[in-house]
Amino acid sequence: MRKIIYYVATSLDGFIAGPANDISLFVSQGEGVQRYLADLKEFDTVIMGRKTYEFGYDFGLQPGQPAYPHMQHYIFSNNLELPGSNDQVRVVPPDIEIIKELKAQTGSKIYLCGGGYFAGWLLNHQMIDELKIKLNPIILADGVRLFERSVVSCRLREIEAESYSDGLHFKHYSIEYL
Amino acid sequence: MRKIIYYVATSLDGFIAGPANDISLFVSQGEGVQRYLADLKEFDTVIMGRKTYEFGYDFGLQPGQPAYPHMQHYIFSNNLELPGSNDQVRVVPPDIEIIKELKAQTGSKIYLCGGGYFAGWLLNHQMIDELKIKLNPIILADGVRLFERSVVSCRLREIEAESYSDGLHFKHYSIEYL
Repeated sequence: MRKIIYYVATSLDGFIAGPANDISLFVSQGEGVQRYLADLKEFDTVIMGRKTYEFGYDFGLQPGQPAYPHMQHYIFSNNLELPGSNDQVRVVPPDIEIIKELKAQTGSKIYLCGGGYFAGWLLNHQMIDELKIKLNPIILADGVRLFERSVVSCRLREIEAESYSDGLHFKHYSIEYL
Repeated sequence: MRKIIYYVATSLDGFIAGPANDISLFVSQGEGVQRYLADLKEFDTVIMGRKTYEFGYDFGLQPGQPAYPHMQHYIFSNNLELPGSNDQVRVVPPDIEIIKELKAQTGSKIYLCGGGYFAGWLLNHQMIDELKIKLNPIILADGVRLFERSVVSCRLREIEAESYSDGLHFKHYSIEYL
């Protein structure tokens, strides 16, 4: 079974974006960011919610394009429509059976890049195996939380922790559901 | 001017308590907890909101008693009534001028122990100088956030970081308001 790893930047108070999806305060360059980009090369598959995919449009992503050129994309949405057909970027309904099928395939760990609502839905179904946080030295106080609309609490077992000169602190955990 | 330090335990996703004020998943003993208790000896003054003071009742605190025997207490509330009179535990209205007066006094740093709403109100008024987090290896997903009803985002400058064998990771920052 492939593991799903939620690998994401958060503020110290648990937000993955501020109000109006503002990410301007997050550390965007330096040693920790390079580490993150290097880690991404390990993944052959990425899963995300519709809003996270569309968020890429603000940064030049064209509808239908892969956000990560070397990965197979699954966008979980009931209403996203992409022009043309591109096997590398598939829109699939938010159905836990599809998640289970992906986990049963061979390949790398599955990279869950967001967003908070999609991750909260996966957590509620105990589908996330690992959590890797890029802890940013910022407080956002409002915005999109790490897990939105989740009712599941869990313990974390540390796999690795590392601090970088750009102020990022990485915490990598396996999730223990209660 | 005395500094106000918000020194508090959080889950990895930024909650200081779970639903119904559940704190059962937080690390409650071990090396990091001992460090926290040793740190508390440095403070001669503690400020908190009403709910945080009353939360102590669940753990045997009697109304009017100090939660921390060696500290002067200020409970910020418009409606809390305590029996008798005890100069060590004073109920004062939530007025920023009182906070400014306390900061102008001589003494140790002022220990802000919670809760989330009181801390959010102080953050909105840029009254908190330092943040010291006992980061717990847990996800709560819901409950009381580190800063409730705050609209202020800010940068943090690391003063110290330390990991303990009980799974706690301490992060101590000064706050830079934007």
